[in-house]
Amino acid sequence: MSYVDGIAPVKTAVLGAGSWGTTFAKILGDAAEGTDRKIVLWGRRQEVVDQINDHHRNPRYLSTTELPANISASIDVEEVLKDAQLVVLAVPAQTLREQLRGWAGHLAKDAVVVSLMKGLELGTDQRMSQVIETELGLSPDRIVVVSGPNLAMEIARQEPTASVVACSDENTAKWVANVCKPRYFRPYTVDDVVGVEIGGIVKNVIALCVGICEGQKVGDNTKASVITRGLAETTRLALALGGKAETLSGLAGLGDLVATCSSSLSRNHTAGRMLGEGLTLDEVNNRMTQTAEGIKSGRAVSDLAAKMGVDMPITNAVVGVLEGKLTVDELGPLLLARQLKSEGD
Amino acid sequence: MSYVDGIAPVKTAVLGAGSWGTTFAKILGDAAEGTDRKIVLWGRRQEVVDQINDHHRNPRYLSTTELPANISASIDVEEVLKDAQLVVLAVPAQTLREQLRGWAGHLAKDAVVVSLMKGLELGTDQRMSQVIETELGLSPDRIVVVSGPNLAMEIARQEPTASVVACSDENTAKWVANVCKPRYFRPYTVDDVVGVEIGGIVKNVIALCVGICEGQKVGDNTKASVITRGLAETTRLALALGGKAETLSGLAGLGDLVATCSSSLSRNHTAGRMLGEGLTLDEVNNRMTQTAEGIKSGRAVSDLAAKMGVDMPITNAVVGVLEGKLTVDELGPLLLARQLKSEGD
Repeated sequence: MSYVDGIAPVKTAVLGAGSWGTTFAKILGDAAEGTDRKIVLWGRRQEVVDQINDHHRNPRYLSTTELPANISASIDVEEVLKDAQLVVLAVPAQTLREQLRGWAGHLAKDAVVVSLMKGLELGTDQRMSQVIETELGLSPDRIVVVSGPNLAMEIARQEPTASVVACSDENTAKWVANVCKPRYFRPYTVDDVVGVEIGGIVKNVIALCVGICEGQKVGDNTKASVITRGLAETTRLALALGGKAETLSGLAGLGDLVATCSSSLSRNHTAGRMLGEGLTLDEVNNRMTQTAEGIKSGRAVSDLAAKMGVDMPITNAVVGVLEGKLTVDELGPLLLARQLKSEGD
Repeated sequence: MSYVDGIAPVKTAVLGAGSWGTTFAKILGDAAEGTDRKIVLWGRRQEVVDQINDHHRNPRYLSTTELPANISASIDVEEVLKDAQLVVLAVPAQTLREQLRGWAGHLAKDAVVVSLMKGLELGTDQRMSQVIETELGLSPDRIVVVSGPNLAMEIARQEPTASVVACSDENTAKWVANVCKPRYFRPYTVDDVVGVEIGGIVKNVIALCVGICEGQKVGDNTKASVITRGLAETTRLALALGGKAETLSGLAGLGDLVATCSSSLSRNHTAGRMLGEGLTLDEVNNRMTQTAEGIKSGRAVSDLAAKMGVDMPITNAVVGVLEGKLTVDELGPLLLARQLKSEGD
C-alpha cells in the first residue's frame, strides 16, 4: 500500500480529457517535473489523444496551453489504468456510474481514486464518491475528492490557486496533496468529504441563479444576498448529511461559490446569464460546448433536500425555472419576498 | 418610550448628508409615504441643504435621485435633533467622537440612535456603537447598527436590497426595521451588534486587498481565496470579541463583503485597485472624493487583533502596504505562501 508508505505513485491515470481533467493532468505533470512519475490521460477521441501525444496540446478544451512532457494520452482505458496507483476521474457526473461499470475490472489493486466531479446523480441522489464506492467496491479511505475555487482556465495559465483535497483518511489526502503541488497550486487537506462534495454540487445551482440575476441586470446588492443565502442553504444540506459547517465556510464552499459567481469563465454562471436574458433552456444547451452541471444536478439536489427535510428556496426556484414552472421574471421578486423577520429564521 | 409602545417615530434626524446618509434618508422617507412621519437631514454645507429643500436632490453625492417630499434639510443641528425620537448617524467614522461631543446636549430624551458607520476608531480601537455609548451615555438597548450588502447607489436606484438591523434588544431593532422597509429594502433583525460591526469594519480592509489583487490582474481563483480567508479572519476577530459566527456568515458579513468586492461602486475596492495598479497612497487619496474607510481603520483593526491575540494575516499585509512596509508586488506571493497543511489550521 504505497500511500501508507509515503511513496508517490509512479503512474497516475486521469480518465477524462475535458478542460478540468486535462488541467489537473498538467498540475500532476508539473508537480512531477524532475521525477520518474508519469501521467497518462484517457480520452474518447483519437484526434485529441494524438494532439496530446504529438504536440502536448488539447486542441478542444485547452488549446493555448502547452502540457508537460511527462503526460501521454490514449483511448485504451485498460492500458491507461494498468498499474496506475492513483486514478483521477473527470467525466460528466451523470455518466460516471455507467463508465465505472466498464472500467472496474481494470483498476489496479489498492489504487486510490480521486474525484474531480461536481454533480449529484439523478434518480439515486448519490454524490460521486458514493457512486465510486458502490461501483468499485472501494473503502472510503481510498476515495479522495478535490474541489475549490478552481477555474480551470486560470490554473492552465498558472495563476496562483488554492484547493481542498478531502478524504475520510487524512493520510490518503496528504499522499494525494503531495503529488499535486506545483508552485501555482496549493492543496489543503480536510477529512470532510460530504461537506466538500455538497459545496461543489450546490454552488453550480446557486451560480445559475446568480447568472439569471445578472442576465436580468439585477444589482450587486441582490447578487450578494443570493450568494449569502445560497451558501446558507448549501450549509444546511451539508450539515443534514453529516458534513461540517467550517468546510462550507472554506475554499470548497464559499471560495468555490464566489469564484464561480464572479467569473465569466464559469459554465453554470454563463448558462444562468443566458436564461436571465430570455433564452430558453434548449437554446442555452445548444450554445454550450460543455455541460453546465447545475442544470442536470438541480433536480437531484432539490429531491435530496426534500428527502432530508432541508429548506432550499433558491435551489427550488432555480429548478422551477429549469423545468418551466417559473419564469425568470418571477424569480427575482420570489427571492426577496420574505417577511420582515430575524435573519436566522 | 415610544419604541416599546410600538409607535413609529414622528420625527427622524439623519446626521450626515453623504451618499449613504442621504440614501438612508430616502429609505426612511419612502417608507413613511402616506404617514405624518418626517425626516430631517443635517448637512454641513448650505448649498447642499438648499438643493435638498428646494429641488429634492443632493447634487454632491446623489445628483440623479429625486428625494421624497417628506425629507427636509438644515445646517442647524440643534433644530434637526429637536424632538427626534430616532437619530441616524452617518458621518466619517474617525470624526464621530468629536461630533458627538458637540451634539450630545441636543438629543431628545429617550431617542434611539442608529449607526450607519463602518469604521474602528484609531487610537481607542472602539467600534462606533461603543463611541456612541460612551459619548452619549446611552444604554445598549437604545443603540442600533444597520449594515449589509448595501451599495448606496444601487439602493438610490431602488434596486432590491436586503440589510441587517442589529441591537442587543431585538424590540428596538424591530422598531427601527419597521420604519425602514420601503418595497425595495428588506431589513432583517439580529441581536449581535459586535458581529455586525466587525463584519462591516473588516470587509473594507479585505476589499482593499481584493482591489489590489485586481489592480495587479490576479485571477478570480485567488480573489475568491482572499475573500474566503478574509471572512475567516474577520470571523475569528468577531468571535474573540463576543460576536456570533452565524452573523459573519450572513448578510452583514459574507453578504457585505461579496457586494463590496464585486462592485466598482465600492470606494475601498476602487482604492485597492488603484494601489494595485501602482499608484501611491497619496495619489489614491487625492483621487477619491469620499473616504475609503479601510485605509483609515486598517491600523486600528490590526492593533485590536494583536491585543486580542487573533491572527489576521490579510489585514496585516494590507496595513503593511498602506504604511509603505510592503510593496503590492510582495503582497500576492505572501498571501499564498502558506505551507501545505489542513485547511482549518
